[in-house]
Amino acid sequence: MVSAMPQVDQLTILAPGLIGGSLGKAIKRHGFARRVVGWGRRETSLQAALQCGAIDQYHLNLASAIQGSDIVVMATPPRATAALLPQLADVVHSDTIITDVTSVKGHVLRAARAAFGAIPPNLVLGHPIAGSERQGIQAAQENLFDGHWVILTPSHETSVRALERVTALWESTGAMVTTLSVDVHDEYLAASSHLPHLLAFAFIDALSNHAQKSEVFRFTGGGFRDFTRIASSDPHLWQEIMLTNDKAIIPAIDQVMQQLSVLRDAIESGDAATLTHCFERAKSVRDRLVGDRVCNT
Amino acid sequence: MVSAMPQVDQLTILAPGLIGGSLGKAIKRHGFARRVVGWGRRETSLQAALQCGAIDQYHLNLASAIQGSDIVVMATPPRATAALLPQLADVVHSDTIITDVTSVKGHVLRAARAAFGAIPPNLVLGHPIAGSERQGIQAAQENLFDGHWVILTPSHETSVRALERVTALWESTGAMVTTLSVDVHDEYLAASSHLPHLLAFAFIDALSNHAQKSEVFRFTGGGFRDFTRIASSDPHLWQEIMLTNDKAIIPAIDQVMQQLSVLRDAIESGDAATLTHCFERAKSVRDRLVGDRVCNT
Repeated sequence: MVSAMPQVDQLTILAPGLIGGSLGKAIKRHGFARRVVGWGRRETSLQAALQCGAIDQYHLNLASAIQGSDIVVMATPPRATAALLPQLADVVHSDTIITDVTSVKGHVLRAARAAFGAIPPNLVLGHPIAGSERQGIQAAQENLFDGHWVILTPSHETSVRALERVTALWESTGAMVTTLSVDVHDEYLAASSHLPHLLAFAFIDALSNHAQKSEVFRFTGGGFRDFTRIASSDPHLWQEIMLTNDKAIIPAIDQVMQQLSVLRDAIESGDAATLTHCFERAKSVRDRLVGDRVCNT
Repeated sequence: MVSAMPQVDQLTILAPGLIGGSLGKAIKRHGFARRVVGWGRRETSLQAALQCGAIDQYHLNLASAIQGSDIVVMATPPRATAALLPQLADVVHSDTIITDVTSVKGHVLRAARAAFGAIPPNLVLGHPIAGSERQGIQAAQENLFDGHWVILTPSHETSVRALERVTALWESTGAMVTTLSVDVHDEYLAASSHLPHLLAFAFIDALSNHAQKSEVFRFTGGGFRDFTRIASSDPHLWQEIMLTNDKAIIPAIDQVMQQLSVLRDAIESGDAATLTHCFERAKSVRDRLVGDRVCNT
């Protein structure tokens, strides 16, 4: 995992926060790039990134920040990533590899096509399946990606060299890299990440709103704490994810609502078999997925 | 927390599994009772309870197991608890304190009234908010209740002495004891525990069923693992909880489905404000509830 020699000379991270800052720290820990440059709109954040060792230097001017970089990582939320692409298209060198970290790929791919007129061969969209309900550069950790999946979503237009470079970047952080099509990524993530966030937010809001107080949640244990952890995530980021991955999320919501309706009716009619079969299937899938990572906490 | 002197001579645990076995271990660790007796239907489980130090001796005959006991703890699921009460009514001494550990109190209270003809003064229903997705005596831990809530639901008929004794029992394990009415307990637990379990089971089953595979869940991180942990819980136990607390759970399901419907429409119509406000309210409630227990994992 530790590189004896830097694999690229310079890498720029656009908007180093939780994800970008963690990537910068991991790169500097494992030596993938000789130099990590930061860019952002708020100088205080960039100073914090510099101070915590996530970047080596920063620029407030985008062209200056990416000048001479082998790889540019857009560490911005979905809408900001889409908005950055036209600016990037104006100033980026055609040899520079561009990647991102957002949880929604179709939205970014469409923005890239519009910004560049076609999918650039050096564009490799990516998504590290790692994060935290905490936000910002203060929450960045050099081992955030260690042992986690990173999904890259190359297109037919993507160059093999660019894909290899971005794969090597993430592998240097300890991550496991896989590839999916953009559509499959967005469908899988709608199911495994976006929908759980929606359910956790909706659950807490519906119950605490109805009671006009959160007294119903006063006596809780570890099950509640774990189930609701993702409801402490950044509301604005998750609003963007829901709206930019709407095509995949809406059918997933419909499937869960349909199942809830079946279970509600089973409870009302005292139908133990329907409940037991659903719970058994769910437990079986979950136990298999989580495997030996099931812990007694 | 450690008792220098036993506070009761003998305590019997009916069906020592995860909860009853953990209680037995905690009692023996902290010395609340001089002797812990086990009772159950399967001798192999009782032998396992004996071997792991959860009980000092056991009987397969109920009358023998509770003979001479100051406190009898029914550590059975809701339906088995209701079914035990008539048997217990036949053999229990009127001085013996009876308590239970189930997650649904109204169902057990109604069964007690039917079994005894009235609520016995020595009956103190209780519910430790602690557990594990693991099951059985093998999962029992002496510190399972340490720092956790135990809710007792005394009735007007309950004697002060019995309530004090059961409070002292749980406090000796390191738990924090509070009291609620049976109805309020069942409403709070429907919201904070039963509904999250239903959502976690329904979520996994709906998504993995629809795809005819669990491939959609192949690339997941800590958010998914935590959100779905409770879907690894005992399917039969949770079916019983849903059906015996139906009156409180159905309105809670309806509230969440109503909220999901609002959010689904907001996603479809691109209504960012509705999503952001819901997510912000939920995050605010959750952050406040969990307080300094929020951890970065």
